[in-house]
Amino acid sequence: MPSRTDYETFDLGDFTLLGGATLRDAKLAYKTYGTLSDARDNAIVYPTWYSGRYWENEWLIGDGMALDPAHYFIIVPNMLGNGLSTSPSNAPPPYDQARFPEVRVQDNVRAQHKLVTEHFGIERLVAVTGWSMGAGQTYQWAVSHPEMVPRILPFCGSARTSPHNIVFLEGVKAALTADGGWNHGWYDTQPTRGLRAMARVYAGWGFSQAFYLEERYQELGFTSLEDFLVGFWEGFFLDGRDANNLLTMLWTWQHGDIGQTEGFDGSLEKALGAIQARAIVMPAEKDLYFPPEDNEYEVRHMPNAELRVIPGVWGHFAGGGANQVDTDFIDQGLRDLLAS
Amino acid sequence: MPSRTDYETFDLGDFTLLGGATLRDAKLAYKTYGTLSDARDNAIVYPTWYSGRYWENEWLIGDGMALDPAHYFIIVPNMLGNGLSTSPSNAPPPYDQARFPEVRVQDNVRAQHKLVTEHFGIERLVAVTGWSMGAGQTYQWAVSHPEMVPRILPFCGSARTSPHNIVFLEGVKAALTADGGWNHGWYDTQPTRGLRAMARVYAGWGFSQAFYLEERYQELGFTSLEDFLVGFWEGFFLDGRDANNLLTMLWTWQHGDIGQTEGFDGSLEKALGAIQARAIVMPAEKDLYFPPEDNEYEVRHMPNAELRVIPGVWGHFAGGGANQVDTDFIDQGLRDLLAS
Repeated sequence: MPSRTDYETFDLGDFTLLGGATLRDAKLAYKTYGTLSDARDNAIVYPTWYSGRYWENEWLIGDGMALDPAHYFIIVPNMLGNGLSTSPSNAPPPYDQARFPEVRVQDNVRAQHKLVTEHFGIERLVAVTGWSMGAGQTYQWAVSHPEMVPRILPFCGSARTSPHNIVFLEGVKAALTADGGWNHGWYDTQPTRGLRAMARVYAGWGFSQAFYLEERYQELGFTSLEDFLVGFWEGFFLDGRDANNLLTMLWTWQHGDIGQTEGFDGSLEKALGAIQARAIVMPAEKDLYFPPEDNEYEVRHMPNAELRVIPGVWGHFAGGGANQVDTDFIDQGLRDLLAS
Repeated sequence: MPSRTDYETFDLGDFTLLGGATLRDAKLAYKTYGTLSDARDNAIVYPTWYSGRYWENEWLIGDGMALDPAHYFIIVPNMLGNGLSTSPSNAPPPYDQARFPEVRVQDNVRAQHKLVTEHFGIERLVAVTGWSMGAGQTYQWAVSHPEMVPRILPFCGSARTSPHNIVFLEGVKAALTADGGWNHGWYDTQPTRGLRAMARVYAGWGFSQAFYLEERYQELGFTSLEDFLVGFWEGFFLDGRDANNLLTMLWTWQHGDIGQTEGFDGSLEKALGAIQARAIVMPAEKDLYFPPEDNEYEVRHMPNAELRVIPGVWGHFAGGGANQVDTDFIDQGLRDLLAS
């Protein structure tokens, strides 16, 4: 997959992060699909996920789909750290590479809010949706800007990163940073041994036990288990992804927690209770790091939420656009949400 | 946990592995508990697990327990590659370190069979039991020597390593070998960065999502999540464990498959059907790499087997002796099996 350049950039100016560092002359890269109505009332925000770029969200956008550019103005903002928005790989010194500061989900949503309000002049969205870390940003939008967000559909993600999810990511991080070529972030060429190692660690988590047992990777065009590990997984992390960028987004993910939003005293439950949006929350049945039970707990604390589990064996990647059945299921959820 | 030396050694002589290599002057290290009866009819074999040493099996042996040395003669053979039996870390050149050959579960059971029959003169065992890779050896005993094995209790393991389990282990291996200090197995000091990385990868798999959510590691004396990752997990893999040994046993694990036993044409189902032993098969409810569904499948193909799921949140380590509730549950299973 070649890197694409058909995106816009919004100047965030000197953007001070929650942690206290200021990203000077920061940029938010984004792509839009469809046309903003004159009333500015047809916009949907659809943030990216861990390591994802805007074009990797496009499988859920299209003619005749719920996210139809003929009807909606769909904004896909790239996460800070994903290599297109301001990131370790493109920030100028002194905040480049290993010195890139810690970014929180709240920072990402604040940057996106500036784009939506200041650049597009939008006062109210139709909906926010996203996969995985995109789901985390979706929850954060609903908590930070309840008056702007009447509908959300977070899929395969959570409002607060669970301890086990943090541990899974510690394993990913440890594999990447075990490569001496990483050199604490001060590398000239990518630490590919570490990137390949993290890919292999990720492989066991991204799809379910049953997915592997049934050799469903054949549906993706891979001819053996090892072919899938190299061709899909190692290829995935070698595809223009940067080690420091991945570590920046990993930190963001590990620290995702809507309860840390101002006004909620660190309480996940209070923050969930403050969500005014109608929500359809979609975990995948066999997701190993966002298990449905965590979303069940969230939905019980949300005023207007429905839990709708994506059935099947695809695990976390049920939400990655990898197969048509799950894509149709998510699309139907969005259709129902947007009709409400 | 200091290394112990209170064990015996059985000379395997020149031991030719299934793969074709011969381990010359090979040794099987073992420990026994209790006294062999004059009739030699009270022996139970209880093999070790991935990286385990005999003393790490002792939590399931004791006065008043099912595995009571007052009644039974319990033999704990150490797996080839575990650092006590012949292993990369103790084999003389030229088969040392990175040149240690591939060992299969069948090889381990053949070595143990020699010990049991040639050294102890035992013709029939009371039972075989084991955790994890110990469960794999338990199945193999029942398939290779059905006439000798009337009862088995494999817990948190499988008769054939599943594809997903293989992938999980690929991640563990990739994390260890991403450390340049590993040097393809030709190291003078342990590649501790890699060992610590594999520990962190393992952490997410060893216990369940709910275990981490409920902070059950506090019951083990750990004071925070990070304290558990360092104190338990990194400590575990730094505790006298050798990188090449771990890779040897990992290969054995990945290739575990009773269907590969002579006479079964590679068929798991045929091999399961040939097990004459009465079996109680015990998966742990939330085991992430030996999920209960795999054992359900096995039990359906075994003539005389009962599935008994260990309930609770401890995941794979339900079978590691880490908590008394699960230990009691397994002990009761053994009690029922031995009474039958």
